[in-house]
Amino acid sequence: MNTVTLGIIGAGRIGRLHVDNLLTIPQVKIKAVSDVVVDHLQEWAASKGISILTTNYQDLLADPEIDAVFICSPTSTHAQIIQEAARAKKHIFCEKPVSFSAEQTIEALRVVVEEDVQLQVGFNRRFDPNFKKVRDLVQQGEVGQPHILKITSRDPQPPSIDYILTSGGLFMDMMIHDFDMARYVMNSEVVEVSAQGTVLVDPAIGEAGDIDTAIVTLKFANGSLGVIDNSRQAVYGYDQRVEVFGEKGVAVADNCRPTTVEVSTVDGTVKDKPLYFFLERYTQAYIAEVTQFSKMILAGEKVLCTGNDGLQAERIAKAARESFLTGRPVKIEHETVISQ
Amino acid sequence: MNTVTLGIIGAGRIGRLHVDNLLTIPQVKIKAVSDVVVDHLQEWAASKGISILTTNYQDLLADPEIDAVFICSPTSTHAQIIQEAARAKKHIFCEKPVSFSAEQTIEALRVVVEEDVQLQVGFNRRFDPNFKKVRDLVQQGEVGQPHILKITSRDPQPPSIDYILTSGGLFMDMMIHDFDMARYVMNSEVVEVSAQGTVLVDPAIGEAGDIDTAIVTLKFANGSLGVIDNSRQAVYGYDQRVEVFGEKGVAVADNCRPTTVEVSTVDGTVKDKPLYFFLERYTQAYIAEVTQFSKMILAGEKVLCTGNDGLQAERIAKAARESFLTGRPVKIEHETVISQ
Amino acid sequence: MNTVTLGIIGAGRIGRLHVDNLLTIPQVKIKAVSDVVVDHLQEWAASKGISILTTNYQDLLADPEIDAVFICSPTSTHAQIIQEAARAKKHIFCEKPVSFSAEQTIEALRVVVEEDVQLQVGFNRRFDPNFKKVRDLVQQGEVGQPHILKITSRDPQPPSIDYILTSGGLFMDMMIHDFDMARYVMNSEVVEVSAQGTVLVDPAIGEAGDIDTAIVTLKFANGSLGVIDNSRQAVYGYDQRVEVFGEKGVAVADNCRPTTVEVSTVDGTVKDKPLYFFLERYTQAYIAEVTQFSKMILAGEKVLCTGNDGLQAERIAKAARESFLTGRPVKIEHETVISQ
Amino acid sequence: MNTVTLGIIGAGRIGRLHVDNLLTIPQVKIKAVSDVVVDHLQEWAASKGISILTTNYQDLLADPEIDAVFICSPTSTHAQIIQEAARAKKHIFCEKPVSFSAEQTIEALRVVVEEDVQLQVGFNRRFDPNFKKVRDLVQQGEVGQPHILKITSRDPQPPSIDYILTSGGLFMDMMIHDFDMARYVMNSEVVEVSAQGTVLVDPAIGEAGDIDTAIVTLKFANGSLGVIDNSRQAVYGYDQRVEVFGEKGVAVADNCRPTTVEVSTVDGTVKDKPLYFFLERYTQAYIAEVTQFSKMILAGEKVLCTGNDGLQAERIAKAARESFLTGRPVKIEHETVISQ
Repeated sequence: MNTVTLGIIGAGRIGRLHVDNLLTIPQVKIKAVSDVVVDHLQEWAASKGISILTTNYQDLLADPEIDAVFICSPTSTHAQIIQEAARAKKHIFCEKPVSFSAEQTIEALRVVVEEDVQLQVGFNRRFDPNFKKVRDLVQQGEVGQPHILKITSRDPQPPSIDYILTSGGLFMDMMIHDFDMARYVMNSEVVEVSAQGTVLVDPAIGEAGDIDTAIVTLKFANGSLGVIDNSRQAVYGYDQRVEVFGEKGVAVADNCRPTTVEVSTVDGTVKDKPLYFFLERYTQAYIAEVTQFSKMILAGEKVLCTGNDGLQAERIAKAARESFLTGRPVKIEHETVISQ
Repeated sequence: MNTVTLGIIGAGRIGRLHVDNLLTIPQVKIKAVSDVVVDHLQEWAASKGISILTTNYQDLLADPEIDAVFICSPTSTHAQIIQEAARAKKHIFCEKPVSFSAEQTIEALRVVVEEDVQLQVGFNRRFDPNFKKVRDLVQQGEVGQPHILKITSRDPQPPSIDYILTSGGLFMDMMIHDFDMARYVMNSEVVEVSAQGTVLVDPAIGEAGDIDTAIVTLKFANGSLGVIDNSRQAVYGYDQRVEVFGEKGVAVADNCRPTTVEVSTVDGTVKDKPLYFFLERYTQAYIAEVTQFSKMILAGEKVLCTGNDGLQAERIAKAARESFLTGRPVKIEHETVISQ
Repeated sequence: MNTVTLGIIGAGRIGRLHVDNLLTIPQVKIKAVSDVVVDHLQEWAASKGISILTTNYQDLLADPEIDAVFICSPTSTHAQIIQEAARAKKHIFCEKPVSFSAEQTIEALRVVVEEDVQLQVGFNRRFDPNFKKVRDLVQQGEVGQPHILKITSRDPQPPSIDYILTSGGLFMDMMIHDFDMARYVMNSEVVEVSAQGTVLVDPAIGEAGDIDTAIVTLKFANGSLGVIDNSRQAVYGYDQRVEVFGEKGVAVADNCRPTTVEVSTVDGTVKDKPLYFFLERYTQAYIAEVTQFSKMILAGEKVLCTGNDGLQAERIAKAARESFLTGRPVKIEHETVISQ
Repeated sequence: MNTVTLGIIGAGRIGRLHVDNLLTIPQVKIKAVSDVVVDHLQEWAASKGISILTTNYQDLLADPEIDAVFICSPTSTHAQIIQEAARAKKHIFCEKPVSFSAEQTIEALRVVVEEDVQLQVGFNRRFDPNFKKVRDLVQQGEVGQPHILKITSRDPQPPSIDYILTSGGLFMDMMIHDFDMARYVMNSEVVEVSAQGTVLVDPAIGEAGDIDTAIVTLKFANGSLGVIDNSRQAVYGYDQRVEVFGEKGVAVADNCRPTTVEVSTVDGTVKDKPLYFFLERYTQAYIAEVTQFSKMILAGEKVLCTGNDGLQAERIAKAARESFLTGRPVKIEHETVISQ
């Protein structure tokens, strides 16, 4: 294969972002886009050279020229579309989470395995050069046996209450990225979580049944400990830090800032705030994840962030929610339910 | 009072350190030192201009010229000596912890209150300019209502197994400093702790009944959350960081390093490791705490780190240990047992 | 105008880089590319969707659809092509320097003015977000009246001796960027230069009649002082720093590094070296300069880096060389020879 | 010798600072202090345990118990007192500069050599741990053969006009420290200087015949280049940076700040300004220089900053002033006039 031909299912913010990034890759061709409504997308699709625009994603699955699809539709549709796409022998890039239920996710993955297609889950942060370097350093033994993982992950502003009502809650829609990051940098499974959460940012979030501030501690299969803190609102920008401490040292990935400029006046020395949000911070990561996906599909090699990675992060998120609700640590069994 | 005359009870490493620091304060006179063995201290005491050297600390309490005593003897003797010193109307500086039991500590504090003397507990880190600035910024509202506290506190190397056997364990001998720091920078009481701990540094520590790696989450009376991570061994030096995140921003105190020099070569850009251990890192803090104590005694004003501060930190340490042993969060009641 | 149609004259490294960056701009169409040899470019041009590939740049000038040309051919050809392009009513983006002689540059600019086309000179560093921020801070008065400018600019490795033999020398091929940066961030003309130079990196550079290490001090029309240091070889990477010190403070743009990761071990704390060279460091700047050029051409507004900017930087470079050769400060008259 | 007994000539700010620092050294005894007026010093001297207070410095020279004197009187008196002290066989610590004239300095040093006493000149910055580390790294070859030296040295506020009128001017009273630093970190003599200077901070400084802003370039005997920039007023604090760039890398000593705390809010990330002035920045250096002096006198070993170091810095300062006045580079011959 010299070129990979793609269909994009769902052309919301993230779908259109993937399109832009995919168009920078010479070996990629985007043939078709589907969404539930497409009228407002005509001009956009034309400007991107996309020839087919449809309200029926099954048109994409039925198109023999299309090698792979990007599933960027709402989470509630992921599991069903994954199965249909796999049955149609399409490789799949699916936004996280795969579903809100481990059963549904497992069911979808079973079909992926049966049909022997590839499925990459959109944990874009794995492709951030900072966090990837931490992972690489750990893998190379630069910090020795890991002892403590620390992740700080704070959004610059809360999502809308509408979003919160359907998001699955902080553990499932926000901290799930950190659970995946934990598994990624530590290269070990999480076997127990203990969650603390509260509402400090906006009472409306509490009224919507969610929390906005949380700290979760983790135990890993390799015996090490970890902690993640989340907030829905860091007024100074997107606070994204990862630290792995081990027997030989510590690796710390700090925030990224727009410039390196520091201004010193009588009032102090001031530098830029962290980059504002995920589109700014993870620009490179978003490009890298779709580039890597395309490359692996072209090469017929295994993608770097699989369905099982999606499943495990979802299971940790569920356990964290249970721990938060019961006030007790929750253990996570690691039977291998699926080998993808 | 123009001069404060002091007696030092216990001339081990920390006692001798206090002597050196106290001698830099013009208004302070050190008249006497006691220890269980004093023969090896003759030359040292002479060089410091200390006229009385005795094996009986009660000689110091009986000396009418002595205004205040520093209790730097083993923890097991603190509560008894505090009571005797208070009865003798001496002001007291006592190393932490006050005792290994809340009952003993309360008993000692009752006598301090009855006799109306001052008692300062040696939580030296409160006097570190970095952490003090974080506290001041929080107090001034610069970060708004606090939401999340993060403390990282890692020693460069574990103490001897002998020390561990009598220290009261990681929560009582090491993390107690962080519990005090938590109360100090957040200006709110800890109402619940949840502890995770393990042995990753040295199995001998586990065999001695202790742990060497721990993460403790905290809930504060003001509704905010916190997390402390400890390790007995950070090979790169003394890792001491504090962060308070709130509605208006975040204040982060980073590690201190011997110099600001950075060297860039083909291998990367290298700067100094953090200062090695508490004697290097907290040099200024140790001077500041005894200077502040002396100043308050001279001025007849209340010391900044009281017996109650000692008691509360001990209660949190006890609760953390209980949480670690039971695997459950432990609540802490905050009846005011003592007003000192 | 909704779209700007471009021709590219010269498809060496920098020409091809501009093509890639221009192709990310929706309103830009690249119709034709010329070079002295084009056989090896067929596949490349096709992959970029460029329909015309020619050995005769005059084909581009004769094409009525082409609105503007990028001159990326050797410096010795710039002045001539500028004039021809201007006569053909094409807007022009020209790589620096415009020429090796003020007379030639002025002659070319006269035609540009006569024909009322736009000419932007490729001082890409003006579009670096770090240096732009320093400029903006100075413009906004954040550092008050400027007193001292400091520029450090060191390449990771020397160019080939072949390049050095035809480059015009360090002042003209390398420090010319810094002379432009000086005018840009200080917003004031250079009225005197005093140059020190030597050969420390490689004797072969000296044998080729050039230097590899230089320090040049500047006096500005506004009375402030400046200093630039250059080296052909900083083994740790591309060292690009700018600092403006003034009555109210100082603004410092530091180097950029691939990641924010710091690793602390027993050996120290290590972070990434600066980005390796101009392609890495000025990725954003190269995109921004062609985006800005296209935008200004489309809007019919004046470009941000004009022929006069090119001319002035060349005049300073000449003066610096004269100062280096004579061992004396050299004054620079600022008659406005050309208003472009 | 177990103890060194000292006399202090001149009890102004710097004299009293030395007294405080000397009193922290166990092996030092300060027996006597002289100043032109002493009435206001009675209480101070008593509090320091200094038994003799006199208006006649020759009393100190005549006292056989006194091993060494600190000359902290006005510069105009240094050369004369050095000679008298040397004749009296006292070792000498003399504040910089030794004199305002190379002839006077040489004359004084001749007597020092003849009488075989030690003379240390008060270039305190050599003892700053940051700059010392840069020097050590250069000595150890960590940056390879040095190519470029950069020193930034800016005071937080100008001295009084009265001071300026008698100080010898910016090159002699301020940049002299940097000339010494240049020789110290490069371990090579300065063979040529080229100076630029102007008045940008305060016209009154110009009216007093001095400048307040200067840039001086240096050529070293080892072929490398250097540049120093000075300002009398950096409103953000004492800006003291040193950088040595060489064939294998670069070593950069940055400013020191009161704390490591960074606060991020919607307005940016703010950290402390540099330490305010020399008393804050060079606290450790001032202690280290007198400790080192005392140690060398006690050990009978050669001091680390000799009369010749003082002389050479003065000669560079003179040459810089000449270059500034003539507008031309000035060469410096390095005949060894004196071996001290």
